[in-house]
Amino acid sequence: MATTNKSRLPLVLLLGIIFLASVCVTCANYDEGSEPRVPGKRERGRQEGEKEEKRHGEWSPSREKEAQPGRERWERKEDEEQVEEEWRGSQRHEDPDERARERYRAETTRKRVEEEREESDRPYQPEREEEKGSSKSQERRNPFLFKSNKFVTLFENENGHIRLLQRFDKRSDLFENLQNYRLVEYRAKPHTLFLPQHIEADLILTVLSGKAILTVLRPNDRNSYNLERGDTIKIPAGTTSYLVNQDDEQDLRVVDLAISVNRPGKVESFNLYGNKNQYLRGFSKNILEASFNTKYETIEKVLLEEQDKESQQSIGQRRRSQRQETNALVRVSRQQIEELKRLAKSSSKKGVSSELEPFNLRSQNPKYSNKFGKLFEITPEKKYPQLQDLDIFISSVEIKEGALMLPHYNSRAIVVLLVNEGKGNLELVGIQNEQQQQEERDKQVQRYEARLSPGDVVIIPAGHPVAVSASSNLNLLAFGINAENNQRNFLTGSDDNVISQIENPVKELTFPGSAQEVNRLLKNQEHSHFASAGPEQKEEESQRKRSPISLILDTFY
Amino acid sequence: MATTNKSRLPLVLLLGIIFLASVCVTCANYDEGSEPRVPGKRERGRQEGEKEEKRHGEWSPSREKEAQPGRERWERKEDEEQVEEEWRGSQRHEDPDERARERYRAETTRKRVEEEREESDRPYQPEREEEKGSSKSQERRNPFLFKSNKFVTLFENENGHIRLLQRFDKRSDLFENLQNYRLVEYRAKPHTLFLPQHIEADLILTVLSGKAILTVLRPNDRNSYNLERGDTIKIPAGTTSYLVNQDDEQDLRVVDLAISVNRPGKVESFNLYGNKNQYLRGFSKNILEASFNTKYETIEKVLLEEQDKESQQSIGQRRRSQRQETNALVRVSRQQIEELKRLAKSSSKKGVSSELEPFNLRSQNPKYSNKFGKLFEITPEKKYPQLQDLDIFISSVEIKEGALMLPHYNSRAIVVLLVNEGKGNLELVGIQNEQQQQEERDKQVQRYEARLSPGDVVIIPAGHPVAVSASSNLNLLAFGINAENNQRNFLTGSDDNVISQIENPVKELTFPGSAQEVNRLLKNQEHSHFASAGPEQKEEESQRKRSPISLILDTFY
Amino acid sequence: MATTNKSRLPLVLLLGIIFLASVCVTCANYDEGSEPRVPGKRERGRQEGEKEEKRHGEWSPSREKEAQPGRERWERKEDEEQVEEEWRGSQRHEDPDERARERYRAETTRKRVEEEREESDRPYQPEREEEKGSSKSQERRNPFLFKSNKFVTLFENENGHIRLLQRFDKRSDLFENLQNYRLVEYRAKPHTLFLPQHIEADLILTVLSGKAILTVLRPNDRNSYNLERGDTIKIPAGTTSYLVNQDDEQDLRVVDLAISVNRPGKVESFNLYGNKNQYLRGFSKNILEASFNTKYETIEKVLLEEQDKESQQSIGQRRRSQRQETNALVRVSRQQIEELKRLAKSSSKKGVSSELEPFNLRSQNPKYSNKFGKLFEITPEKKYPQLQDLDIFISSVEIKEGALMLPHYNSRAIVVLLVNEGKGNLELVGIQNEQQQQEERDKQVQRYEARLSPGDVVIIPAGHPVAVSASSNLNLLAFGINAENNQRNFLTGSDDNVISQIENPVKELTFPGSAQEVNRLLKNQEHSHFASAGPEQKEEESQRKRSPISLILDTFY
Repeated sequence: MATTNKSRLPLVLLLGIIFLASVCVTCANYDEGSEPRVPGKRERGRQEGEKEEKRHGEWSPSREKEAQPGRERWERKEDEEQVEEEWRGSQRHEDPDERARERYRAETTRKRVEEEREESDRPYQPEREEEKGSSKSQERRNPFLFKSNKFVTLFENENGHIRLLQRFDKRSDLFENLQNYRLVEYRAKPHTLFLPQHIEADLILTVLSGKAILTVLRPNDRNSYNLERGDTIKIPAGTTSYLVNQDDEQDLRVVDLAISVNRPGKVESFNLYGNKNQYLRGFSKNILEASFNTKYETIEKVLLEEQDKESQQSIGQRRRSQRQETNALVRVSRQQIEELKRLAKSSSKKGVSSELEPFNLRSQNPKYSNKFGKLFEITPEKKYPQLQDLDIFISSVEIKEGALMLPHYNSRAIVVLLVNEGKGNLELVGIQNEQQQQEERDKQVQRYEARLSPGDVVIIPAGHPVAVSASSNLNLLAFGINAENNQRNFLTGSDDNVISQIENPVKELTFPGSAQEVNRLLKNQEHSHFASAGPEQKEEESQRKRSPISLILDTFY
Repeated sequence: MATTNKSRLPLVLLLGIIFLASVCVTCANYDEGSEPRVPGKRERGRQEGEKEEKRHGEWSPSREKEAQPGRERWERKEDEEQVEEEWRGSQRHEDPDERARERYRAETTRKRVEEEREESDRPYQPEREEEKGSSKSQERRNPFLFKSNKFVTLFENENGHIRLLQRFDKRSDLFENLQNYRLVEYRAKPHTLFLPQHIEADLILTVLSGKAILTVLRPNDRNSYNLERGDTIKIPAGTTSYLVNQDDEQDLRVVDLAISVNRPGKVESFNLYGNKNQYLRGFSKNILEASFNTKYETIEKVLLEEQDKESQQSIGQRRRSQRQETNALVRVSRQQIEELKRLAKSSSKKGVSSELEPFNLRSQNPKYSNKFGKLFEITPEKKYPQLQDLDIFISSVEIKEGALMLPHYNSRAIVVLLVNEGKGNLELVGIQNEQQQQEERDKQVQRYEARLSPGDVVIIPAGHPVAVSASSNLNLLAFGINAENNQRNFLTGSDDNVISQIENPVKELTFPGSAQEVNRLLKNQEHSHFASAGPEQKEEESQRKRSPISLILDTFY
Repeated sequence: MATTNKSRLPLVLLLGIIFLASVCVTCANYDEGSEPRVPGKRERGRQEGEKEEKRHGEWSPSREKEAQPGRERWERKEDEEQVEEEWRGSQRHEDPDERARERYRAETTRKRVEEEREESDRPYQPEREEEKGSSKSQERRNPFLFKSNKFVTLFENENGHIRLLQRFDKRSDLFENLQNYRLVEYRAKPHTLFLPQHIEADLILTVLSGKAILTVLRPNDRNSYNLERGDTIKIPAGTTSYLVNQDDEQDLRVVDLAISVNRPGKVESFNLYGNKNQYLRGFSKNILEASFNTKYETIEKVLLEEQDKESQQSIGQRRRSQRQETNALVRVSRQQIEELKRLAKSSSKKGVSSELEPFNLRSQNPKYSNKFGKLFEITPEKKYPQLQDLDIFISSVEIKEGALMLPHYNSRAIVVLLVNEGKGNLELVGIQNEQQQQEERDKQVQRYEARLSPGDVVIIPAGHPVAVSASSNLNLLAFGINAENNQRNFLTGSDDNVISQIENPVKELTFPGSAQEVNRLLKNQEHSHFASAGPEQKEEESQRKRSPISLILDTFY
C-alpha cells in the first residue's frame, strides 16, 4: 500500500507535467490570438517556437500527442503558410503542369546541392550546416530571397491568374520597413480582359511581356493606353481600371508594386463584376432602388448577376458557379478589342510623359550599357514626377549570358528585384546575425546567395553590396524604395567606383597592399558596371579584342 | 483506504487544473504588463481572450472564483473599457435623459431587427447570427461605427465638458493607420471660458454650433478670432490658447481632430490653471524663484493656487476642491467678454485665408448642391495651405430629410465622419473577413450599417463604397485623411459617375445586362450626388417639378 | 498512513506550484523568442518580469536552479543589458578614473538626497518612495535621462573608441516615435584615422572638440573638409567616408545623430578594412576574380588581409589579432596627414553653405545671448536646406556657471540634448502616469530632475516645460526632431514669454492673483532666455549693475 502510494507520486507529477505542457501550449495560443495587429510577429513567433522545440527536444512524441488540441489550433491559425498550402493543394487539382514543375524544382534543387558542393573553396559557408531543400531552412539561409512559389494565387482560371507575393515584413523583421509594399503578378491569355475593379493601394504597373490596353477611369474622364513590354504607369489608389490582352498570340504578363493606403500590407480589391463580390451588391435593396431610381428587379437583372439559378443548384454546381462568380478574367472577341483599341493612346513612346501617362523604361538611353549588359532607369527626380510622391525608381536590367553586374551598393534605396527572364546567381553581402537583436559589435560579413529563376524576388537593403551573374540572358526588373538622392556605388570597374576614390594614404592604411598595388589591382577591370563573369572568359575576351567586328556586332545584339 | 486514494487522484488532478488555470491567467497578466508599447494589441488581446472564454465555456463559475486574483488585475488594467464604464456610471447620475435615451435605443434596436426581418431578400446578413444590442457585438458587427458613448469624459462641470473619443486603432487593426488621430469634443455654456493650455498635438478645430472667441498665443504675438458655426482653424501643436463662448444664449460646441506629435494617439494637455496640474508647479522652488526673480511665497500667491486651504479641508471638501482645481471651464462676466471681443478678428469671412487665419467651410460655393443636399469642402490643394502639411480635407455635408447622398467611394482619403445634427442611416460596403489576417481570396462584399445619431462617428476607409440617407435633416462633418489627389467616385447619378465611364464592350462583359440596358439604367437617376432616398418619393418628386416655386423655396431653406 | 497521505497532498500541491512556476517562465521565454519584431517590448518585458520576480520573491535559490535552462536562455537573449554589462566590465579594466568617478557619483547622490530632504516643502515627490542609486530605479524615476553609461562601446583600442547610445524606444514607450534615431559618439587620439566605411543611416555629424579632416566619397567625386568644434555636416546614408584627427595634441570628439533607413534603430556599418568584417570578403572567390579581372591570390594579398597568419596563431594570439582585424581606428603619420590636408576645404566659415558643405553652429549670431548664456541654432528653414529633408534643428547652448536657461517648452520639436561640457541640473515637467496607458484624466504634473554630467543625454518631448541650471560652465548640444515651425515658448523673462501674452481678463481667471499682480510678477525677471540661477545672486546682480565695466567684461568672456 505504502509502495503504491510512493510510486503514485511520480505518476501524479508526470500527469502534472503533461497538463502543464498542454496548458502552456494553450497559453501560447491565447497569446497568438491576442496579437492580430503586428501579424508578422505572430508567424515568426510560431516558427521560432517550433525551432525551439526541435532544437531542445522538449517535446517527446507522447507529450505532443497530449497537446494535440492546442497544436491543432496553432496550425489552423498559421494563415500565410496555410493559404500557401491551400494554394499548392488547389493547384494540384487545377494545374496539370504542377507535377512536372515539381519534378523540375526537385531537379534544380538537386543540381544546386551538387553545384554548391563543387564550390567548397568558398571562405564562409555558415549555411553549410543547415539542412538543404526545405523551404524553412532556405528562408533562414537567405531571408532576402523569395522564390516564385511564395506567390499566393488570388485568382486563377483557364484564361490566366492573379498572384500576390507573401508579405515581406512577415518573412523577417529585416523588412519591417517594407510593410506597405506588396508585389502582384497578372498573367492573361490572348484576347482576354481583367474586369473593372479598384484597389485600395497605389500601384506601379509594368508590362513584363505581351501587349495590353489599360483603361483608367476617373469620375468624369477615361483614358486608354496601349502598353507593351517595359511600359510602366502609376495607377493611383482607388482608381477603377481594366486591362485587356490585345495580342493575338502572346500571353500578357504584368507586375504591380502595390503600396497600401488604408492598412499596412493590405491591397484589397473592390470589383464591379461577379456575383458574391460585386461591391454594388453590398448596398441594401432600398438604397439601390433610390440610388438608381429604379425597381430592384431591374437593377438585379441588369447590374447584378441572377441569384435564382444559384439557389436551384446543387452544392456541387454551386461550387462551380462560385468560380464563375469571381471571374476576374474573361474572353473578349476580336471585334470588342478593336472597339477598345480605337480610343487607346500609344503614348508610351513620347519623350516626356505627362502626369498620368505611361512611359517606357527603354525609351531613353540606358544609364549603363556595354556588351555585357544594360541598365535602364527612371528616377523620381526627372521625367516622371508621379514617382516622386512614392519616392520610387524603376530599373530594367539586362545581363548577357556569362556576364556579371559588378559588385555595387545603393546608398539609400531598398531594391525589390524581380527576375523576369533567364537564370543567374546573386550574391548579397550582409552582416552576420543582422537578423538578431544584438548590437553592432563583433559582427562579421556574410554572403547570401540566391540562384535566380523567373518569378523569383530578391530584396536588396540599402548599403548592402550585391553582384549578379547570368547563366542565361537575364532580365531583371527592379523597384527602388527611398529612391531620391540614391547613389549606386560600384566597388570594381573603371567608372562610378567608390573604392578608387579613396586617397592613396588612406588606401595604404585600409588595405594590406600598398597604394600602388591597390591602384594597379583596381585598373585591372577595364569595364564598368557590367563585365565578364568567368575568369575563363578573360582569354576569350582578349581574343575578342582582336576582332573588333564581333565586338560591334555584339553591341548591336 | 485504497478507494480513498483512488478517489484522491482525480481530486489532485482537479486541483491541478484549477492551479494551472490560475497560473495561466497570471502568465497572461505578466504578458500584458510587459507590452506597454503597442497598446492596441493589449486591449484587443484581452477582448479576444474573453471571447475565447465565453465561446468555449472554459470558465465555469467556480473556476472563475478560483482565478479571481488574476482576473481582478486583468480588469484593473482594462483601462479604456474601464474609463468608459466609469463614464457611463457617472452619466447615469448626471444625465437624467439617459434612461429615455436607453429606451429610445432599445426601441430603435427592436425596430431595426424588424426592419431587417422584412428585408429578408437581401443577399448577405452574416450579422444575423450574432446577439444584438450589446456594445461588443455591435463593434463586431460594425467596427466602423463609434457610437457617441465611445467618447470618454476628460473634464466635466456645470459649465460644460471635454470629451475624447476612444482610440481608433484600439478598436480594430482596420484602423492601424489612424493611430495618430483622435477626436476631441468641447461643449460650453454661454459666457464661459476654457482656460489657457497647450496640447502636444496638432489640432484642427471646427465650430459645430455657437459663437466663440479663440485666442492663440505665440511667444511674441497674440491673435483672437471670432468664430461661428463652420469656422475652422488649425492650431499647431504646443500652441497656448483659450476659448470663450461669447454668446448670451447658445451653447458652444466645438470638435478638434488631434494629430499627435510625440507619441501615437497621445494628446496630453499642459495647463496654466488649476492646482495639481498647473505645469508651473512642476518646477522646484529654487528654479521658480530664480526664474521669476521673486520669492516663492509671492509666486505661489499670485500664480499657483493656495495649498493651505486644501490641507485644512476634510476629505469630503478636498474632493470638491479637487474638482475646482482641475477647473478647465469657468464663467466669464459680460464685461470681460466685451474686453476680449474688442481685439478679436472676424476674419473667417474673407475669401482667401492667410497662414493661420480661420476659414469658414461654408464661405465658398458648395462643391455639390441640389435640393436634396449640399457638400462644402476645403481641400489642402487650394485656399488653405495649412491643411497641406497635415494632408487633410474638411467637408460639411447637409442631407435633407428623406434624401440620400448617392453611393460613392473616396479614392485615397480615409474619412472620419461626425454626425453633428439629425438622424440617418449609413451603409458602408467592405470585404468580409477584412478584419482577419487572411489573404485576399474568396472574399465576399459585406454591408455594414449604422443608424446615425448626433455625436456618432463613422470611419470610412478609402476605396470603400458608402451611402447615407437622412431620416431627419442631417448635418455631417467629415475629416479626410490622405486628402491630396483624392477623387470622390460616385456609383450612381448623372455627374461624377465612374460606372458610366466604362466603355460599352466592357459594360457587357462586366454586367449581366447588355450595354444598352446598363446605360438606360444609369440614366434613370437624373440627379447627381444627392437624390431622394425613397422610391415612394419619386412620385412626390415629379409633383414638385410641377411647382417650381416650392423647389426654389426649398433651395433657399 | 492516513496522516502521511493527508500531509502528502500539500506536498504534491507545492511541487505542482514549483513546476507551474518553471513552466510559466518557460512560456514567457517562448514568448520573448517569438517577438523579434518590436524589440523594445521584449526587453522591457524582461525587465518588468525581473522586477516582478524580485518584488514578489517568487524565486528561491533552489527554484531558480530548477528553472535554470529557461533562465540561461533568458540571459543570453538579454542583449542590450548584457552588452552594457560587458562594457562596464571592460571599462573597469581600462579606465583608471572610474573609481574616482564612482566615488564622485556616490557623493553627489548623497548630497542630492540631503538637498531633497531640505526641499521638503516641495509639493510633489512621488519618487521619494523608490530606492535611490540603482540604475533601474533611476530610469523609473526619470525615463527622460540617459546617463553616459548607457552608451555601448562598439569599438575601442588605444587610439580611441566608437560608442552607441541605447535605443531610445527600448527605454520607454514615451519614445516610440524616436525609434529611427540613435546617437553615436567617436573619440580619437591625435594623428589617428577612422578607416573608410559606410553606414545604412543618415548621419548628422557635429564636432564636439578637436580638429578633423572628413572625407566624403561619391562614385565619381571626393570632398574633404577641415572641421573644428561646432562644425556640422550631413552625411547621407550609404556614403563612404573617413575621418582624421589632424591635431597634434587634442583629442577629437565627434557625435552623430543617426537616422536609420532600412530598419528602425539599425545603424549597421559596412567596412572596407579589417579581416572578418571587410565587406568585399563577403563575395565569393569567383565573383571577386571576375569583378577585379584578377586572380584571387592577388586580390587577397592586396585588398583582403591574410588569413594564413591567423590560422597559425594560438587562441591567445588570435584574440589579439581579432582586435586588430576590427581595427577601425589607426595611427597616421604626420606626412600622411599633410597629404590629406592639402585638398581639404575649410568651408565651414562661409556664410551660406552649399548642398553638402559643413557649417559651423557658431558662425552666425546667436539666437539668444546675454551675460548668462548663449544659444546658437541652425533651423531647417534657412541656411541649410539639407536639414529640411530630415526636419531637424541643431542648437549649441552655453550656460554660464551659476546661470539658468529660463523655463520654456518647444511647441513641436522633440529635443535630444547631449551634455558636452560642464555640470548642471535639468528640470523637466511631465504629466504623472504619462508612461501608463491611462486616458488623459485626473493627471498631475510631475517634475523629472536630472543632474547633468558630460556625456549624459536627455530627451525633452515637445510641449514639456524644461529649465536648465549650470553648476559649472555648461555646454549643451541639442538635436531637435520635428523642427519645422517649432516655437520656443518661454514661461518667464521679458522676451518670448508666452504667459505675458495672455490677456488681462484671462490672467485673472487663470491665476489666483489679480491681473495687476501677475503682470508685476512677470516683470520682475528683466532678463530673457538666460538669467541668474540663484536667488542669492539677485543681490550680486544688482551690485553688478552698478559696475557696468564688469558687465561688459563678462559679456566678452
